[in-house]
Amino acid sequence: MLDHPLVPGSTSAIERGPWHYGADYISVYFRGEVASLKRLVPAPFVTDDGLCMAYVCEIISVADAGPELIASRPDRTIYQEAAVGVKCRFKGRTGIFFPVMWVTTEWSLLRGILNGYQKRLADRISMTKLHPLNPGLKEIAPGARFGGFCVKGPGQTLSLEVTIEKAGSPSDLPSFGPTYGMRRFPSTGDAETEVNEPVEILKSNSRVSDVWIGSGSLKTKLKVGKITPLSGAVYRSGFTISGSKVLKA
Amino acid sequence: MLDHPLVPGSTSAIERGPWHYGADYISVYFRGEVASLKRLVPAPFVTDDGLCMAYVCEIISVADAGPELIASRPDRTIYQEAAVGVKCRFKGRTGIFFPVMWVTTEWSLLRGILNGYQKRLADRISMTKLHPLNPGLKEIAPGARFGGFCVKGPGQTLSLEVTIEKAGSPSDLPSFGPTYGMRRFPSTGDAETEVNEPVEILKSNSRVSDVWIGSGSLKTKLKVGKITPLSGAVYRSGFTISGSKVLKA
Amino acid sequence: MLDHPLVPGSTSAIERGPWHYGADYISVYFRGEVASLKRLVPAPFVTDDGLCMAYVCEIISVADAGPELIASRPDRTIYQEAAVGVKCRFKGRTGIFFPVMWVTTEWSLLRGILNGYQKRLADRISMTKLHPLNPGLKEIAPGARFGGFCVKGPGQTLSLEVTIEKAGSPSDLPSFGPTYGMRRFPSTGDAETEVNEPVEILKSNSRVSDVWIGSGSLKTKLKVGKITPLSGAVYRSGFTISGSKVLKA
Amino acid sequence: MLDHPLVPGSTSAIERGPWHYGADYISVYFRGEVASLKRLVPAPFVTDDGLCMAYVCEIISVADAGPELIASRPDRTIYQEAAVGVKCRFKGRTGIFFPVMWVTTEWSLLRGILNGYQKRLADRISMTKLHPLNPGLKEIAPGARFGGFCVKGPGQTLSLEVTIEKAGSPSDLPSFGPTYGMRRFPSTGDAETEVNEPVEILKSNSRVSDVWIGSGSLKTKLKVGKITPLSGAVYRSGFTISGSKVLKA
Repeated sequence: MLDHPLVPGSTSAIERGPWHYGADYISVYFRGEVASLKRLVPAPFVTDDGLCMAYVCEIISVADAGPELIASRPDRTIYQEAAVGVKCRFKGRTGIFFPVMWVTTEWSLLRGILNGYQKRLADRISMTKLHPLNPGLKEIAPGARFGGFCVKGPGQTLSLEVTIEKAGSPSDLPSFGPTYGMRRFPSTGDAETEVNEPVEILKSNSRVSDVWIGSGSLKTKLKVGKITPLSGAVYRSGFTISGSKVLKA
Repeated sequence: MLDHPLVPGSTSAIERGPWHYGADYISVYFRGEVASLKRLVPAPFVTDDGLCMAYVCEIISVADAGPELIASRPDRTIYQEAAVGVKCRFKGRTGIFFPVMWVTTEWSLLRGILNGYQKRLADRISMTKLHPLNPGLKEIAPGARFGGFCVKGPGQTLSLEVTIEKAGSPSDLPSFGPTYGMRRFPSTGDAETEVNEPVEILKSNSRVSDVWIGSGSLKTKLKVGKITPLSGAVYRSGFTISGSKVLKA
Repeated sequence: MLDHPLVPGSTSAIERGPWHYGADYISVYFRGEVASLKRLVPAPFVTDDGLCMAYVCEIISVADAGPELIASRPDRTIYQEAAVGVKCRFKGRTGIFFPVMWVTTEWSLLRGILNGYQKRLADRISMTKLHPLNPGLKEIAPGARFGGFCVKGPGQTLSLEVTIEKAGSPSDLPSFGPTYGMRRFPSTGDAETEVNEPVEILKSNSRVSDVWIGSGSLKTKLKVGKITPLSGAVYRSGFTISGSKVLKA
Repeated sequence: MLDHPLVPGSTSAIERGPWHYGADYISVYFRGEVASLKRLVPAPFVTDDGLCMAYVCEIISVADAGPELIASRPDRTIYQEAAVGVKCRFKGRTGIFFPVMWVTTEWSLLRGILNGYQKRLADRISMTKLHPLNPGLKEIAPGARFGGFCVKGPGQTLSLEVTIEKAGSPSDLPSFGPTYGMRRFPSTGDAETEVNEPVEILKSNSRVSDVWIGSGSLKTKLKVGKITPLSGAVYRSGFTISGSKVLKA
């Protein structure tokens, strides 16, 4: 049988999970305005102290069901992502909710929506990449600058920049706790089933390396209120997502 | 509040409907192999006699909620679509089920999936357009040829060609009946809500014009079995979709 | 032999001309600042009174050498273009020089550069299209609004909007005279041949139809100085380009 | 002044060189048919023994004039490239001529054409990337497979696959000698200047690392005759290009 686009399978837009990720991040941590952020974070999640993060990243992703796609269908294993996340609480437990994540491929869009991420399709995400053999580039070091942007439709949704100050370690990165999301699939007519459930993303195998810490700045069309940049970071990260679990009120 | 990508609203990927469509089609009618088609048509739909259609089209679409986007956000009102549809029956009533529809924008992808279409994102759809003022082109007339193709990932998913033989009328186009679909949103973990319901698309306001009839041919990676082309057509069509309704067994 | 990308031929990026065009335009006429415009118009062309035009359009183009591509390779016959043109003079004869034209395909980019247009590749051009059968759209009439934009890299290069006031005729459109350009191909090392010649584009077969006149506005990152919109127009046009001829000082 | 798209400068499509490159390659070495290859290699170059290479790569490129674009305009520093090169001779000196190089950005297209490369714009190039932190991926090792493809218009222009057998060194990679090219800019009308000169690309600072050697296979629409794969390789490389020099007969 041909799989439905949203039903994981070999002919679906989504392969069967768990799904494994390896990503290179350029991130900026900042404080937004709580009054604005509240309009981006749906109940039952409660905006915390205004701490947020924004990032652009390139992700190499394979599913348990098809790691061989890395060679046979590389277009099914690479995408770029840009996002803004807001620190929030569920029953007193802090976590991060991403009002929007822009991604560059269909499969990351639909897989994410299924798992509870509020993903949108980007037209383009571009971000700094260094290359150790480029005779015109230096290795990453204090003073190095990184940038990235996301374009959708008529203009930018997010752009950010980080200036490196020093080498860091994973513990230097602000911690938010688990990733929260919303699984939603509304009805379009009478008697149709609806899905509307808050979830926690089931994430494991997390590891971080190559951390560099510095200052950062960003612009976004997402209405986060006045932005107070706190810090910036460049790092690599890996993790596994196996789905999501419903959060019961 | 920021809308979830799948919950129609002004900040969602999907505007509030009903949604209106005006489309220019290049279509090929053909017979596939019933044994193959059965693997493309999910229960409760039953493959009929093997009659199928394939098309590429350009669609201008506006929502009741925002017709002004035609000027302010034209990228939210234009997309291309390529599809293969299979004649099938539900409780003895014939209709058409599209195992796959490839589209070129996020909003047509997600809107369609919500309504029950098995949409996928195309990388590119290209199709013949004539222009009455181009000094090197003739008006449409017997002998004129039209073609189109859809590319996704490493190659073509569909290509077709039509050679015009004569002017026609809407009644010259094969009739399939209503459009059937599947609304699906599977769980990704314990206790999550699932959606899995056969639907009929709620379509109204149908009108067709500028019909030209001829012969056609097509290639598709969709496994429809041996293709026996029946006819081809070029035409314009308009309609309104207000959602879908569940089909009860 | 395989053709060089710039040497017109069946395996080149450019087919052998003459090349025929049919285009749908949304145009805004405006006055820029002469001091700014002078920096956009190279010698021997002389900026005139500051009159300029900006447009977005969709073009159907075929070459004498391969009109059948309209069906077999529609991707070789359709592109979008956005441009800003400046009224200027050469030896006292007024014409129009386009400091930049953004286009959406390789072949229109390279063909244009060869002929003397200062073309650049756009990431995306989107513009209003109406459709007579769309139940949610009205026919073009006074009050109708049209818009378009061009995105390249991190943001917009041009956006414009036109509000229709009345039906018009071709003679209602401001006339600029011939199209001027620069053919340039600099050396990249000693003893290499250079091309640096002002040209007039060889244009014929011009025809215009479906003219609607109104008001317009635009934004562009091109440094044209303060913009004073004069009028807007929507129309269809066709013409043939056979190459260019050198303008001798 | 606004720069012409082909005249290197800060507002041109091409920045002022020299240009520095850091690239990750997946390459396949093969033998084509000399009779076929002769039709791909223009005089004064002479096809050698049929040795060819094909590759896909991702390139990070900066110009001497603007290394800061790596952060402020990453879209001006990253592109993908796919190409087929043919061993040939000029006055008895062996080198490599690339009948076609497909690239994913305007600036690499135009810069390459200016320097003498027969570049074409790809719609998409995708290639295997590993990530050391992805829990579902292994490090590169014997048995690892890499693949890549290039799509342009209706289909693939090149696809290739490499299976790693062992770690290697730069000297394990077949050597072709200098890169030859053709600078061409034909006239489009009477009395226009033409450029038609064979060149050698001025390449320096070459370095190679992370070499892995294995077997390979490829498909291409370029008419190279029957393909006999010889070997495959994955490696990183860096170099500088400062332009080209005319080869005098």
